[in-house]
Amino acid sequence: MLTMQDALIRLTGYWAGHGCLVGQPMNTEVGAGTLNPNTALRVLGPEPWRVAYAEPSVRPDDSRYGDNPNRLQTHTQFQVILKPEPGNAQELYLGSLAALGIDLRAHDVRFVEDDWASPALGAWGLGWEVWLDGLEITQFTYFQQSGGIALDPVSVEITYGVERIMMALQGVSHFKDIAYAPSIGTARGGTTPHAPRADSVGISYGEAFGQAEYEMSRYYLDDADIAANRELFETYASEARRMLDARLPVPAHSCVLKCSHAFNVLDARGAIGTAERARAFARMRGLAHEVAALWVERRAELGHPLGDATVFEIALEKTVLREIAAPAAFALEIGVEELPSAEVRPAAEAVAERLRTGLEAAGLLTDASAVDAFSTPRRLIAVVRDVEPKSPDTEEVVKGPRLAAAYDASGEPTRALLGFARGQGIDAADVRAITVGGKEYAAHVRTVAGKPAAQVLYGLVHEIVSGLRAGKNMRWNLPGLSFARPVRRVLALLGHRQIVVDELNRGRTTDVHRAADPSRVPVPDALSLIGVLREHGIEPDPARRRTRIVEDARTLAAGHGGTVDAAAEEDLVEEIVDLVEEPVAILGSFDAKYLDLPEAILTTVMRKHQRYLPVRGPSGELLPHFVTVANGECDHDVVRAGNEAVIRARYEDAAFFFQQDLRSRPEEIKHGLDRLTFTERLGSMADRSSRIAAIAADLADRLDLPPGERAVLDRAAALAKFDLASAMVIELPGLAGTMAREYARRAGEDAAVAQALSEMELPRSAGDAVPATAAGAVLAAADRLDLLAGLFAVGAAPAGGSDPFGLRRAALGLLAILRAVPSPAAAPLTVGGGLAIAARHQPVEVPPEALAEAERFTARRLEQSLLDEGLPIPAVRAVRPLAGDPARAARAASDLAGLLRTDEFARLTTALQRVLRIVPEGTEAGYDRGLFAEPAEGRLAEALSRFRDALPPRPSLPESVSAAAGLPAPIDAYFDDVMVMDKDPVLRANRLGLLAAIRDLVAPVLDWREVG
Amino acid sequence: MLTMQDALIRLTGYWAGHGCLVGQPMNTEVGAGTLNPNTALRVLGPEPWRVAYAEPSVRPDDSRYGDNPNRLQTHTQFQVILKPEPGNAQELYLGSLAALGIDLRAHDVRFVEDDWASPALGAWGLGWEVWLDGLEITQFTYFQQSGGIALDPVSVEITYGVERIMMALQGVSHFKDIAYAPSIGTARGGTTPHAPRADSVGISYGEAFGQAEYEMSRYYLDDADIAANRELFETYASEARRMLDARLPVPAHSCVLKCSHAFNVLDARGAIGTAERARAFARMRGLAHEVAALWVERRAELGHPLGDATVFEIALEKTVLREIAAPAAFALEIGVEELPSAEVRPAAEAVAERLRTGLEAAGLLTDASAVDAFSTPRRLIAVVRDVEPKSPDTEEVVKGPRLAAAYDASGEPTRALLGFARGQGIDAADVRAITVGGKEYAAHVRTVAGKPAAQVLYGLVHEIVSGLRAGKNMRWNLPGLSFARPVRRVLALLGHRQIVVDELNRGRTTDVHRAADPSRVPVPDALSLIGVLREHGIEPDPARRRTRIVEDARTLAAGHGGTVDAAAEEDLVEEIVDLVEEPVAILGSFDAKYLDLPEAILTTVMRKHQRYLPVRGPSGELLPHFVTVANGECDHDVVRAGNEAVIRARYEDAAFFFQQDLRSRPEEIKHGLDRLTFTERLGSMADRSSRIAAIAADLADRLDLPPGERAVLDRAAALAKFDLASAMVIELPGLAGTMAREYARRAGEDAAVAQALSEMELPRSAGDAVPATAAGAVLAAADRLDLLAGLFAVGAAPAGGSDPFGLRRAALGLLAILRAVPSPAAAPLTVGGGLAIAARHQPVEVPPEALAEAERFTARRLEQSLLDEGLPIPAVRAVRPLAGDPARAARAASDLAGLLRTDEFARLTTALQRVLRIVPEGTEAGYDRGLFAEPAEGRLAEALSRFRDALPPRPSLPESVSAAAGLPAPIDAYFDDVMVMDKDPVLRANRLGLLAAIRDLVAPVLDWREVG
Repeated sequence: MLTMQDALIRLTGYWAGHGCLVGQPMNTEVGAGTLNPNTALRVLGPEPWRVAYAEPSVRPDDSRYGDNPNRLQTHTQFQVILKPEPGNAQELYLGSLAALGIDLRAHDVRFVEDDWASPALGAWGLGWEVWLDGLEITQFTYFQQSGGIALDPVSVEITYGVERIMMALQGVSHFKDIAYAPSIGTARGGTTPHAPRADSVGISYGEAFGQAEYEMSRYYLDDADIAANRELFETYASEARRMLDARLPVPAHSCVLKCSHAFNVLDARGAIGTAERARAFARMRGLAHEVAALWVERRAELGHPLGDATVFEIALEKTVLREIAAPAAFALEIGVEELPSAEVRPAAEAVAERLRTGLEAAGLLTDASAVDAFSTPRRLIAVVRDVEPKSPDTEEVVKGPRLAAAYDASGEPTRALLGFARGQGIDAADVRAITVGGKEYAAHVRTVAGKPAAQVLYGLVHEIVSGLRAGKNMRWNLPGLSFARPVRRVLALLGHRQIVVDELNRGRTTDVHRAADPSRVPVPDALSLIGVLREHGIEPDPARRRTRIVEDARTLAAGHGGTVDAAAEEDLVEEIVDLVEEPVAILGSFDAKYLDLPEAILTTVMRKHQRYLPVRGPSGELLPHFVTVANGECDHDVVRAGNEAVIRARYEDAAFFFQQDLRSRPEEIKHGLDRLTFTERLGSMADRSSRIAAIAADLADRLDLPPGERAVLDRAAALAKFDLASAMVIELPGLAGTMAREYARRAGEDAAVAQALSEMELPRSAGDAVPATAAGAVLAAADRLDLLAGLFAVGAAPAGGSDPFGLRRAALGLLAILRAVPSPAAAPLTVGGGLAIAARHQPVEVPPEALAEAERFTARRLEQSLLDEGLPIPAVRAVRPLAGDPARAARAASDLAGLLRTDEFARLTTALQRVLRIVPEGTEAGYDRGLFAEPAEGRLAEALSRFRDALPPRPSLPESVSAAAGLPAPIDAYFDDVMVMDKDPVLRANRLGLLAAIRDLVAPVLDWREVG
Repeated sequence: MLTMQDALIRLTGYWAGHGCLVGQPMNTEVGAGTLNPNTALRVLGPEPWRVAYAEPSVRPDDSRYGDNPNRLQTHTQFQVILKPEPGNAQELYLGSLAALGIDLRAHDVRFVEDDWASPALGAWGLGWEVWLDGLEITQFTYFQQSGGIALDPVSVEITYGVERIMMALQGVSHFKDIAYAPSIGTARGGTTPHAPRADSVGISYGEAFGQAEYEMSRYYLDDADIAANRELFETYASEARRMLDARLPVPAHSCVLKCSHAFNVLDARGAIGTAERARAFARMRGLAHEVAALWVERRAELGHPLGDATVFEIALEKTVLREIAAPAAFALEIGVEELPSAEVRPAAEAVAERLRTGLEAAGLLTDASAVDAFSTPRRLIAVVRDVEPKSPDTEEVVKGPRLAAAYDASGEPTRALLGFARGQGIDAADVRAITVGGKEYAAHVRTVAGKPAAQVLYGLVHEIVSGLRAGKNMRWNLPGLSFARPVRRVLALLGHRQIVVDELNRGRTTDVHRAADPSRVPVPDALSLIGVLREHGIEPDPARRRTRIVEDARTLAAGHGGTVDAAAEEDLVEEIVDLVEEPVAILGSFDAKYLDLPEAILTTVMRKHQRYLPVRGPSGELLPHFVTVANGECDHDVVRAGNEAVIRARYEDAAFFFQQDLRSRPEEIKHGLDRLTFTERLGSMADRSSRIAAIAADLADRLDLPPGERAVLDRAAALAKFDLASAMVIELPGLAGTMAREYARRAGEDAAVAQALSEMELPRSAGDAVPATAAGAVLAAADRLDLLAGLFAVGAAPAGGSDPFGLRRAALGLLAILRAVPSPAAAPLTVGGGLAIAARHQPVEVPPEALAEAERFTARRLEQSLLDEGLPIPAVRAVRPLAGDPARAARAASDLAGLLRTDEFARLTTALQRVLRIVPEGTEAGYDRGLFAEPAEGRLAEALSRFRDALPPRPSLPESVSAAAGLPAPIDAYFDDVMVMDKDPVLRANRLGLLAAIRDLVAPVLDWREVG
């Protein structure tokens, strides 16, 4: 059996053999290997670096007295940094698994999107968690920024979770049972006899570390002195400050780490209040950033002793372009490291589209040909059936002097013309006359021959590759490129001719499964690419993958009397389609006893964490099975067993949390919200819960909720969001609300209260259900109003792509609630009204401009939703004045979409737009009938009165339009007969005042200028 | 080239392959691997343990900004613990060197005595420093006690100094030049090209750690905040206290380590005053002891999860005793691990002596035979030419009932006799009459046959082995044995027959050089043992080794125009004789530029540190060569080069210290004494220096020193012991005084002052020179008086074998000075007088009984010296009354030794002893002539008067004896004629009063009762 220490020795040897310096763990407590200066400092700056080291990582908050089978206050990370990223880090990593004795052909090893960001460290990177048969065993990250500094070159960080790997490899279910080392003293000296132990099976992890695990847990959770650790925090923070001032980044970093450990101890002791937490984070973050900046400076001053890895010498191969004589197929395959699933198909579509437009622009696309997109997580493919061999010839015109100045009186070329001709390298006699802008010029008109397809494609492929972009983009070790994950190779075949793409060329081959032998296979020509991939098990067509996954899963489920509801699992199925390129469905099972847990827990674990398809029985009930979809052929028994162990551990954890939570009443659980920070200036989650309750109360008053519903609301508000502090939701945040209902019901709360607590989290996403009860709706609205008012007030509005607090989702949720839930028609709750209420309960002052900005932000979300619902742009824009009342706005937009097609409405619109165009901004409504000079004036005034009288209170759009039916004719007559802009200012003002009265009456209905 | 990380990987692999758990460095700063709980805690208690780990060891005081080639604030230890010690740890260790690629046959690897004790940790052990060609590369210790707890089983601790090993193996002279790792990124991924560094020779130690070395040095030496670290010390100490109270030894230990690091930082910053240091040490020691005790308790409570290694199952071989028929030779060889050199010959002599007395007692030693002792560091040998085959028969007498009670009136045996006979298993008729104490008894007398020699020797050898004792003894993994180092085998041959000694039997073989092949060779019979050893290069006779060493050294020196002065190097030669068993002299050289350093520095390094024989030219001047004596054949070039590198580094260091010291004036250097603790209650060395000056001043007053000498004294006293704070003396303490003279002279001090500063350290040992100048003598005396008065006052008198402050040496030094240096005859300085002066200057009260004890302690040292000088015991004892004036006492003893042989003195003694015997203690002198009744009374009184008149002031012994010449006759007559103990109390008192007057007059001369 491979012991844990064998594993560490092998990893050390493996990475040392791949050019890594072997480092030592940090000599102060760190929460992760990332904090060791061998990573934290060395990834900064231009110097190359490769290092590997074990790092016993101390996380006081994970203390469990050694009782929890998977959670330890000190766990062992094995950390590798490759700087610059070498271009084959995934392959190197897989080699290290093989070095551990893991048979890569038997197991299902996958790279599953998992990006990493530590705002506290000013650090982020993109990458994956690596799954071994469903178990996360490694974090693999392309480090993009650290200490607030963009990294150049980019490093790869590989962090193995050694305990988890060992538990999986050894098949044990508690960390204490890991075989850590062989038996002590198996080597005997001389003949001195002694029998050190009865058994000689080795030292277990528990034997080696169990006592420390228990005792350090005691220290961190129960016994550490709070005042003492607070003092330590201060002392180390100020030492760090002093070291920065002394320009010594190394001791400063050490002090920051000690400071951070003191904080972690305090946190584990439950001693960190909201304000303190925020201050502490800000302080540590500031120090860490300064350490990073100072390190960079100091290394530069030292002249970068290890060299400069940003200096590249790229030896480009000679680009060879092979022309074709007849139309030929073209295939482009861009090989990437595993893309996030959401990026796969959009990226492939974008590639195909750009290829299509590029070829069209060059005139290379035959009429009959289309560009087909294919994609898997590791490749983006576009195939064109026919590309013309050459783009058509074109004429190029170079304008010369005016014709009048080109020839003198005798018709001889002037100096101007002669100069032009010389410049163009032609004879003056060869110029032609052209007409530009009605004027004649001498010009040189030449025929430009069409470009060969290969040449066009060479440029186009470069443009496509360098133009790849995703939602989140990263850099790697190829300057000029930026995409969701590194692009590693490009295969471009025009017929059977290869278009070599410089440093991304890997020959006329494609990559198949990494564990396949060979893993790189030849592709004879463009049209055979898809076939070659299929021959090697890869299905490049997402639709076919989907079919295969669903069919295989159903077949497996049927074998156990169940089925997989693909429709219900639509999102998951779609995700799986883009997680694997060789889908291999495997059915696994779990102990039926876990079916006692709430179903949401079981399915959340399956879907969100493991991407397993739940298997259901005839009545839709969960069966104790799941289907996992491995990538590529493997040993099904091995992979099944691995996945079953993972879900067993997860369900065991969940059962543990569930039982733990059930020991406390909701009120007790809620105390934990004190320890959850919301934001620095807006306090803790407990503060937020109180605010939501207060806002909900105001809303209820405003909406005049019936007493029964009010009682439900008040009770639910008192518990609002309590489950965020439950062990289960801390572990599985997606269960917020669901667990609240579960725990509230089990604690004997009224079912309506439990329901309201659940509903207040709705809608979770666009298209999700909205609260069905008044109490739920009010709480949900209050929740989102609090978010918007508070965060806009403290300047935390979304910027660029960043929306850390999910304000876009909050605004959409608020809109969905306001649209769906009945609000008193007489005095509906508007967005602005709600925000104003929420603003009153914020702990900070909310400036009016912040409220206005929040309102505009919400209005923009409304427009976007309406557009997404298929309403025409003019309709959406025209209802902007109604955005404060989203229900009404939506209804109006919908009505408007119908009206836009009617002549009557068109006439009204035309008339009103005439009115609106002529009335200057700032004109006040009002007129004196005594000043009327033309009969049309009187008639229009009368029509206006009739219109006003016909309007019901809060009219719908059709009602307004109907009431205005008598307006167009008198308006048209008015403009025909009356000189509005009369020279007499009094008359002019009176005439404009009449029109302004119309304007004011129709303004709240629509923004008429946007109509049509 | 083997890089440092390769070396760490190989050591890890080697020890993991020998059953060690691979540990991780401690996650807080530690000064040594010993402090890692994997050692500090795991060596305690009965559980077996084997562990190996690298430990970057942080010693703030060793910070040198990375400038010093050999000294770093963080150096790398590789630590191995084998518990229980396996019996072959030396061989395992040598295997690890071979694993590093060290050719053990080419190099000179030696185990040189180096015991380890950390009173602060309550820890000690015996062992060696391991030398590789003269370079200390490893500490190898049998751990005997830790945290104040005796260790059972005993652990072996092996600590490699990895940087030093690498510097030697790579042949570099600065740690920064160590090749640490191969080039970064030698492994290339795919075809992505990059050229990370111009050179690809690898990462040097300086590149990897240079910046940290500099910056952490800055922190520790210059920038760490003193108040902050003081706070850290307190905080961690009190957290440790709390964890002990919570019975959590693991976090407590961590807190103690952090506390200790804070102390070390403060110390490096020069912020620790004497009182604070003492308090801090006491506190840390107390905490560490409690941690150890608590760990032991907790492990017991946990039931010793790793088992109990104190449970032995020793499978003894069947002891076979083979008798002999005719006298045969006997050889005993006790194989040991390298003994301290001073123990080698005494131990062998003791073995031979015990064997001789044992054989004699058993009647097995023939008249002609003697027991010869041989010895080397690894073996103690005794050889007897002839042992009788059998001890003589003897008679055994068992006493029965009184003869009178044995037979009844009829002469028949009584019941008593019958019972006795039955008990003896004989017939009543077989008893014999014996006489005991004048009374007759019935007895059973039986002849006991002599025992075979083998049987006697079997018992005797066991007794000898288990009775081995040295100055400092240790335990190892064989219960019942205790000696300077482990005994590993016993070879006992009686003729060609083996006497098997149980678990120490290794067959009929002896061990030769460890690198020899084979390293164990057969021994045919007792008389061939010495020859077999010589055949294999080992010289078991120390005298022959000495001859070989001296002759070889001289021959080598002659080759370079020099010689080795064996007489001047007597002590060193004798030490070398017992450091090696196969002496191989090798001449090495060093750069002649180092000859500019003071000679004492050069020779101290050679003698004390390296055991090299200095080579001198014709005029006695040092030549740039030395002779080292390797143990066994080796590659001379390799060993020479290694030793030359060592001495180069040491001289380079010395030159560095010398230059550094010369930058400061003596007064400035002296400030450093503030930081050197003397003892807790007696303050710093600066305090002690001031006291010495004050005591010297009082002594000078008392002795009325002439003004010129007084001026010299005053100046020297102001600088007293300043050189203890010099870098050179801190490094080479044996140069105290020598460097004071050197530095004082170079600083322009008067030559006499410089001389006095040097002389104040004299005599360094028994037989060493004493100060030649008055100033030197006064300072030297003041120094020793201060030591004695102060340390006796605080109860630090030597106890048992322990004399940590060298008080025996101080007393002997004081006596040598007082005897050698003229003191005013009229009022000589006595020991008591000097101590009283010294007592007045102590910072603590000196109780009179402490002073008296110090005086008695010194008097006992005087007796011992006089005996050592060959004076007869009666003479030495008789001069006890003069001990306060050692010069006079010595003279008197010497005189007495002559007088003892004269009749006249014998008559005087007899007469005086009669007087002294009869006078009861407490009798007052004095008599009334009027009460004289006999003429003898008057005559005696007259003789007494004449005696008193004849005595000169402060008479010498011969003067006193001469003056007393007229006493014996009147005394004899007095006792003949006078009834001293008359019944009349008045007469009796008068007669005793007369005798008491004689007593009082002769008492100060001698203790007459001890004479003859």
